[in-house]
Amino acid sequence: MTGNSQLAQSPAIEFAGRARVAALQMATLSDEVRRAALLAAADLLERRSADILAANALDCKAASPLVEQGQMSGAMFKRLQTSERGVKDMAAHVRGVAALDDPLGRELAVTALDDDLTLYKVSCPLGVVAVIFESRPDAVPQVASLALRSGNALLLKGGSEAEHTNTVLTAIWREALAAFPEIPRDAVNALYTREDIKQLLSLDHQIDLIIPRGSQAFVDYISRNSRIPVLGHGSGVCHVFVDQSADLRKAVAVAFDSKVQYPAVCNAAETLLIHSAIAPAFLPQILQGFAEAGVEVRGCPRTLALSGQPHMVPATDTDWETEYSDLIISVKIVDSLQEAIDHINRWGSKHTESIVTEDPKAAAEFMDRIDAANVYHNVSTRFSDGFRYGFGAELGISTGKLHARGPVGMDGLTTYKYKLIGNGHTVASYNRGERSFKHRKIK
Amino acid sequence: MTGNSQLAQSPAIEFAGRARVAALQMATLSDEVRRAALLAAADLLERRSADILAANALDCKAASPLVEQGQMSGAMFKRLQTSERGVKDMAAHVRGVAALDDPLGRELAVTALDDDLTLYKVSCPLGVVAVIFESRPDAVPQVASLALRSGNALLLKGGSEAEHTNTVLTAIWREALAAFPEIPRDAVNALYTREDIKQLLSLDHQIDLIIPRGSQAFVDYISRNSRIPVLGHGSGVCHVFVDQSADLRKAVAVAFDSKVQYPAVCNAAETLLIHSAIAPAFLPQILQGFAEAGVEVRGCPRTLALSGQPHMVPATDTDWETEYSDLIISVKIVDSLQEAIDHINRWGSKHTESIVTEDPKAAAEFMDRIDAANVYHNVSTRFSDGFRYGFGAELGISTGKLHARGPVGMDGLTTYKYKLIGNGHTVASYNRGERSFKHRKIK
Repeated sequence: MTGNSQLAQSPAIEFAGRARVAALQMATLSDEVRRAALLAAADLLERRSADILAANALDCKAASPLVEQGQMSGAMFKRLQTSERGVKDMAAHVRGVAALDDPLGRELAVTALDDDLTLYKVSCPLGVVAVIFESRPDAVPQVASLALRSGNALLLKGGSEAEHTNTVLTAIWREALAAFPEIPRDAVNALYTREDIKQLLSLDHQIDLIIPRGSQAFVDYISRNSRIPVLGHGSGVCHVFVDQSADLRKAVAVAFDSKVQYPAVCNAAETLLIHSAIAPAFLPQILQGFAEAGVEVRGCPRTLALSGQPHMVPATDTDWETEYSDLIISVKIVDSLQEAIDHINRWGSKHTESIVTEDPKAAAEFMDRIDAANVYHNVSTRFSDGFRYGFGAELGISTGKLHARGPVGMDGLTTYKYKLIGNGHTVASYNRGERSFKHRKIK
Repeated sequence: MTGNSQLAQSPAIEFAGRARVAALQMATLSDEVRRAALLAAADLLERRSADILAANALDCKAASPLVEQGQMSGAMFKRLQTSERGVKDMAAHVRGVAALDDPLGRELAVTALDDDLTLYKVSCPLGVVAVIFESRPDAVPQVASLALRSGNALLLKGGSEAEHTNTVLTAIWREALAAFPEIPRDAVNALYTREDIKQLLSLDHQIDLIIPRGSQAFVDYISRNSRIPVLGHGSGVCHVFVDQSADLRKAVAVAFDSKVQYPAVCNAAETLLIHSAIAPAFLPQILQGFAEAGVEVRGCPRTLALSGQPHMVPATDTDWETEYSDLIISVKIVDSLQEAIDHINRWGSKHTESIVTEDPKAAAEFMDRIDAANVYHNVSTRFSDGFRYGFGAELGISTGKLHARGPVGMDGLTTYKYKLIGNGHTVASYNRGERSFKHRKIK
């Protein structure tokens, strides 16, 4: 009980409670107000560019010794840093979200159950969404704009290394929204400490969805420690399978792009599977490409033998389950489509899997039998992304099967409710046979 | 570690692993095979009617002393008992599920990302579904038919009181399916002990969804003790609000039906809210109706005063959060639509909420501001049900917001995957500006 009084001091509980109240108000904001507020926020971001850059300079100054001491990666520092151009991009992104179709109030289905008794399945906001992200301050306007466009109250927790920048960005956002009396003050609140996150995870009655953006370990930690639904993915162990009927040119292009184009991201390939019938023709070509791009190859015994590089690093079972996020790839030769499918279903992370083949039957079998969010035919795994899919925005990529799967756009922040409009209808009159259901589908 | 070797002996782990393998096969079963197997199972159920009734007689014989000793309710005993007619109904239900449209392979969206690069969002099975239910043996063919129709592998755990009947039903089901070589043997497996359930709850890598059907305490136990997503609802605290602009005839009909028509179920109303402006006219009428139906009324102080029954049971805060599941209703007089909305958002269970009013603006505000799966206008709360909604089958009613909300039909057992078909497309060619996305919506 003494613990409780301590816990009660964390702002997370208070903010979550206020967000819950705000969410009920936000569910009824008109499309017009939501769009106008986004455009106002975009304008204010640009007008306050100098403030943002000054705050960002403070964060970068504090971070640079960490980079020198090896406590922060260069990539992370680069994500932390913003610029005049960066602020313009933030504003442009917010305007882009304002221009997206209204995700709310969409009639997903309409059925006349009977005369004067009509059932509407209507999209509506989830309610309260918590987003926890590391480093990159551009996530603040990005996530805040998606939440507002979809009528959700938002709790934001950014990385401590970007605290100055995040604070200024959140203040600008709240100032822009304050000009709209319909929008509750608690539409967006920021949290700052690890203790806040810990608190957040226990508030399953207040928070409808958590979106953790960051390392695999971080996402796993959130999933393991909360009963709140999580949208995200732990790891991205993606495969390219070059089938015996593959077109060699396409196979090289797809395998190379999947690994090399941007190896640090979750939709990059980590393992290349090659049908033994095509391996003698394909392997030398792709190995040459990988060598030129500086890719380290870890091969199964047959790959080692066939490559003419017996001193190539041999792949172990650990390789099959590893997300390198780097210019490293494991390569395995298999004897059948089935063996490739079995390997992927065993070792893959249900993220993105691609087959290269000119045999449509093999492609269909691969795509049906692989249990993954994205299954591709003659395409680089790097395409699995909300922007490439045409969603206009991306919240993240989900490897869970419930709610939203694969790249998730703004729709991931909505649910639906059933609205039934009648004229004094009672169930008793149907049970007595005075009335009967018609179930006429209108939409 | 010694615990582990014991745990490994529970069949739950083995069956879940086999279900996982079976699920991959089931995802590719043709509509034809799935339908034919269901019709075969329906036929076999009817042919084995005598076996089912003999097993059921054993269960009923074992249960009747429990009823006499007050350890089993009469309602539960009635649900346990089946008959020749009951078996015919089971078979008819299975044929009904066979007749439903194929839920798999539906193109939910199609977008041409570019020439020769098309993205399909296609419905597919979840994978492995575990259903845990109490008493009623008709759940076995009901759930098994929905799982097979939607290509999911199923783990079934029925109540121990129906063990003989469930065992025979499961055996018949498996025998019918065995005639189809395409269907894996592990399409359906039954579990029998509490230890199995405990094991099941930890298998979040093997099981995609748990559907617990039973008491509120049981559903809560499952939700609290597993990381596997749960489809269901804890409690059903539903309200009827009689607005100041209500038509009195409709108000009486809706309030009466919502409470009295079948009080034991989750979509029955537990609290009646009445606008103070209409209470003097409405309250006497509904109280008379309730009195004739033997409904116990628990009133707020104003209800007590207005009813002319000062000795009526006074309602406490406990009443506002109680699902009576019986002929008891709490009544509260409120001074505004907002007060009614606030009461429901505070005390309701986000299940089904109804307003009676002739004012469309009040109705719209109620339906938008109430955070519940089903929001009704001039309709009894008792309509929230998959069959009444025209789904042809019901898995349960979900008060969660993710995945499926409200009454859930067979679609609740499906997810989707993205299939992307190209011609050797690489992301690099888009980033270099050689190609650009077209994002042409086809469907």
